[in-house]
Amino acid sequence: MANTASARIANLRPGDGYVQSFARGLEVIRSFSASAPSQTLSEVAARSGLSRAGARRILLTLEALGYVRSDGKWFSLSPRILDLGFSYLSSMPIWNLAEPFMEELVAQVHESCSAAVLDGTDIVYVMRVPTRKIMSISLGVGSRLPAYCTSMGRMLLSALPQDELLACLEASERTPRTRHTVTEVPELASRIAQARRQGWSLVNQELEEGLVSLAAPIVNRTGQMVAALNISGQANRTSARVMQDTMLEPLLEAARTISQRLDGAVGR
Amino acid sequence: MANTASARIANLRPGDGYVQSFARGLEVIRSFSASAPSQTLSEVAARSGLSRAGARRILLTLEALGYVRSDGKWFSLSPRILDLGFSYLSSMPIWNLAEPFMEELVAQVHESCSAAVLDGTDIVYVMRVPTRKIMSISLGVGSRLPAYCTSMGRMLLSALPQDELLACLEASERTPRTRHTVTEVPELASRIAQARRQGWSLVNQELEEGLVSLAAPIVNRTGQMVAALNISGQANRTSARVMQDTMLEPLLEAARTISQRLDGAVGR
Repeated sequence: MANTASARIANLRPGDGYVQSFARGLEVIRSFSASAPSQTLSEVAARSGLSRAGARRILLTLEALGYVRSDGKWFSLSPRILDLGFSYLSSMPIWNLAEPFMEELVAQVHESCSAAVLDGTDIVYVMRVPTRKIMSISLGVGSRLPAYCTSMGRMLLSALPQDELLACLEASERTPRTRHTVTEVPELASRIAQARRQGWSLVNQELEEGLVSLAAPIVNRTGQMVAALNISGQANRTSARVMQDTMLEPLLEAARTISQRLDGAVGR
Repeated sequence: MANTASARIANLRPGDGYVQSFARGLEVIRSFSASAPSQTLSEVAARSGLSRAGARRILLTLEALGYVRSDGKWFSLSPRILDLGFSYLSSMPIWNLAEPFMEELVAQVHESCSAAVLDGTDIVYVMRVPTRKIMSISLGVGSRLPAYCTSMGRMLLSALPQDELLACLEASERTPRTRHTVTEVPELASRIAQARRQGWSLVNQELEEGLVSLAAPIVNRTGQMVAALNISGQANRTSARVMQDTMLEPLLEAARTISQRLDGAVGR
């Protein structure tokens, strides 16, 4: 897909500044982060690999469009940036309809519930109903985690054709996150095949010590898996066995309900 | 601010395609929505006011960069779009530290808790810990609501200089949302002044029939209000009086705790 797009890009008129200027503009947006919430022109230039003049043009453009605020020296992103992500979220049918069912599930099992989609070798959180904080990492909408060691990731990977699945696992940075993390491709493929057969996935402390997570698929009318839904809990409060015995059915039920309500527009 | 930026933009080299191409690219992203999750080239062109050729170049660029997916005919946004909003969220210090305190507050008062910032005449949600769904509207991160008729909006507006406040109220589309909505500028200014004096804001069914909301300010070390925190509940379960009597103190306490933990980097 990326190759096709690159090939088509190469067919665009030479000297057409679109591709490069747009890509650089997006890089400038991405140069802001927790460790760089406000930046000077020079910092933006350094972080995004642009000349000062190039960075300045893009920052002024972003400021004129309302995506960046500045006092003349320091630049920071404005909340308007969220409109872009909101375009994506609101274009996902699951986003508007899943929340009440996720809230019901949380009220029933007293653990956090999230929904995520696959993007390359990562899962990306698109919705989350938290209860008490149980993880050391913050997981808001837009957060990324590696797919290979998460329950939602393995569920989503199970929908890929076998060659794509293996390529994705090979491309993943499979570092052991805990002493339980499975990192060998054949064993991962086998666990993902199991998730496909049983229609759910359990990951026990492979991402983070003490964290157990159970995932189920959200499927549209054409049978395409469009997202995964999970429950995550603390192993010392709820063992993997107890989670499977008491929470799997409510999770599958919520996932089925949400799947049934996805209209025909999904994955059109 | 916008004028200054426009003036500076006008000083950029003439014929420099940056501003226009970047603005158009962002418009293409924004042309996707709940009612248009997948679009053809012609639909994108029509919705973003571009020629087919222009829309095509931008779509191929976005596809090459991984922000758009396509089967050759239908185009849709990819989750990578969320990285842009995530750059903004993770660049807000409140985002990483507020969630556990918001979750504690929700556990204590059993109502939803959200955080929002001001953007023009709107508030934009940056964090949310929901309980049961109580509103007819979906309010995820990135959602916008008018500032003048919401508790967080009035709290945030109370930090503006008087001339900016009045200009913002005048510019707001002050349509009555319910029979309780205050729409007159002098009365709004008076309620906002009250919020400033007392350090919190209560809005009783002005946004939506049956919805009561209480907001408090999040303030950084330099005294700048960087966000508002709220609790919202159902009027028939919790009257405005009961909410004020039982939930104001926990809300103010949570807002103070979060404010104290904001480091010096905020508003730099």
